Amino acid sequence: MAKNIQSLERAAAVLRLLAGGERRLGLSDIASSLGLAKGTAHGILRTLQAEGFVEQEAASGRYQLGAELLRLGNSYLDVNELRARALVWTDDLARSSGESVHLGVLHLGGVLIVHHVFRPDDSRQVLEVGALQPLHSTALGKVLCAFDPVARQDALDGERRPLTPRTVVDPGAFEAELATVREWGWAADVEETWDGVAAVAAPIRDRHSMVVGAVAVTGAAERLRSAGAAPGEGRPAVRDDLVAAVRGCARSVSRDIGNGRF
Amino acid sequence: MAKNIQSLERAAAVLRLLAGGERRLGLSDIASSLGLAKGTAHGILRTLQAEGFVEQEAASGRYQLGAELLRLGNSYLDVNELRARALVWTDDLARSSGESVHLGVLHLGGVLIVHHVFRPDDSRQVLEVGALQPLHSTALGKVLCAFDPVARQDALDGERRPLTPRTVVDPGAFEAELATVREWGWAADVEETWDGVAAVAAPIRDRHSMVVGAVAVTGAAERLRSAGAAPGEGRPAVRDDLVAAVRGCARSVSRDIGNGRF
Repeated sequence: MAKNIQSLERAAAVLRLLAGGERRLGLSDIASSLGLAKGTAHGILRTLQAEGFVEQEAASGRYQLGAELLRLGNSYLDVNELRARALVWTDDLARSSGESVHLGVLHLGGVLIVHHVFRPDDSRQVLEVGALQPLHSTALGKVLCAFDPVARQDALDGERRPLTPRTVVDPGAFEAELATVREWGWAADVEETWDGVAAVAAPIRDRHSMVVGAVAVTGAAERLRSAGAAPGEGRPAVRDDLVAAVRGCARSVSRDIGNGRF
Repeated sequence: MAKNIQSLERAAAVLRLLAGGERRLGLSDIASSLGLAKGTAHGILRTLQAEGFVEQEAASGRYQLGAELLRLGNSYLDVNELRARALVWTDDLARSSGESVHLGVLHLGGVLIVHHVFRPDDSRQVLEVGALQPLHSTALGKVLCAFDPVARQDALDGERRPLTPRTVVDPGAFEAELATVREWGWAADVEETWDGVAAVAAPIRDRHSMVVGAVAVTGAAERLRSAGAAPGEGRPAVRDDLVAAVRGCARSVSRDIGNGRF
């Protein structure tokens, strides 16, 4: 088995470093964080800069990610079949539910948002395409974990931070939650990731019935919670009509990518 | 002067190749397009795949861009100061004009869209963040060319394709157009890029008064054109109130990034 190219691996590590935490770093910080000689790190940074993958702040000389990544990320979306097939269905779901809709796939032990339809009102909303959300607490993440063994292992091996008092962090409880998701065929997140926010998600399956992504409706817990359900009382206390709408959307997208054709 | 790292330059070339044209390519196509031995190309692709920068279609074995680029592109936006400062002002501009708003910067001989506020109605719109628009025909591009010598040279050296019957392609006419933009302080594109679409753009200046980006309102030519102006009759026949609103937005963003502080 041939080895991967070391300078490429190091360049990817530099980009990952700049994508997290500080986001603007000097040469010395980058070199020491990655255990590289300064000269080596500088050669990588200079080349990445020439290619537009990093930019250097004129005043401070610190490095940050470059614009070429935005262009390439957009090209990735253009070729993403799942997103292309989901566009119309997720738009319809946002309209019918009156809430925002997200489409997510497993990436780097998290849920990468590949599509986001804003809630159809005139409130100020921030686009979350490209954001990486937690696998263990979000409705999207739970769906992926329940049906994709790789996602489940990522979540079990991962940190499972308590993000709210309601986040499920205990491995046994998490496994039980996944079993329920598999039984019901959908997942809910009622204030387990963000206080005041709830979500309902369902799996998208390809022609081999493999779960390749998930779609979710997300909104204020007060709107998504089913009438009469007290918080903390039993399992998913979310509105039946939303569950039906999300599952219907997931089925439509699945059919469009070839699932269930006999 | 030390040389840049060849394997990194080649990897960047692979990603650029996958971002344009076909977007799904086999190993042989990639190797021959870039003049690389198949083994060399395969080593680069394997490493890029391990890092999430490319993905391989299971059925065909062809390569396409990977999800990690979307995540990094999103992180680029998070650190982009121009976009951060422009968020509120561009939202206000979209509301007051009732049209969509774009923020663009010079990148690779084009205008890279770093922010896009949808037209505030419930029509179906596609997010254009990360898209590269032409420099010579768009209002954003003309503003960048008029005030940034690098952009101007890119446009003069570039192809200047006639995108509609109204696109200015002749170098002399293009230079005259830029002189007008400099004199007026803003640019218009009335069906020069897309049939039926008009735009008005103004420059954003940093603390050194350098133009670092441009903001534009874009919409149906019928709505943006000034009353009584016949198409093709003289220069920018766009509504004065839109010009004032766009220039006001550009001034606000400029002030927020340090321009005009005495």
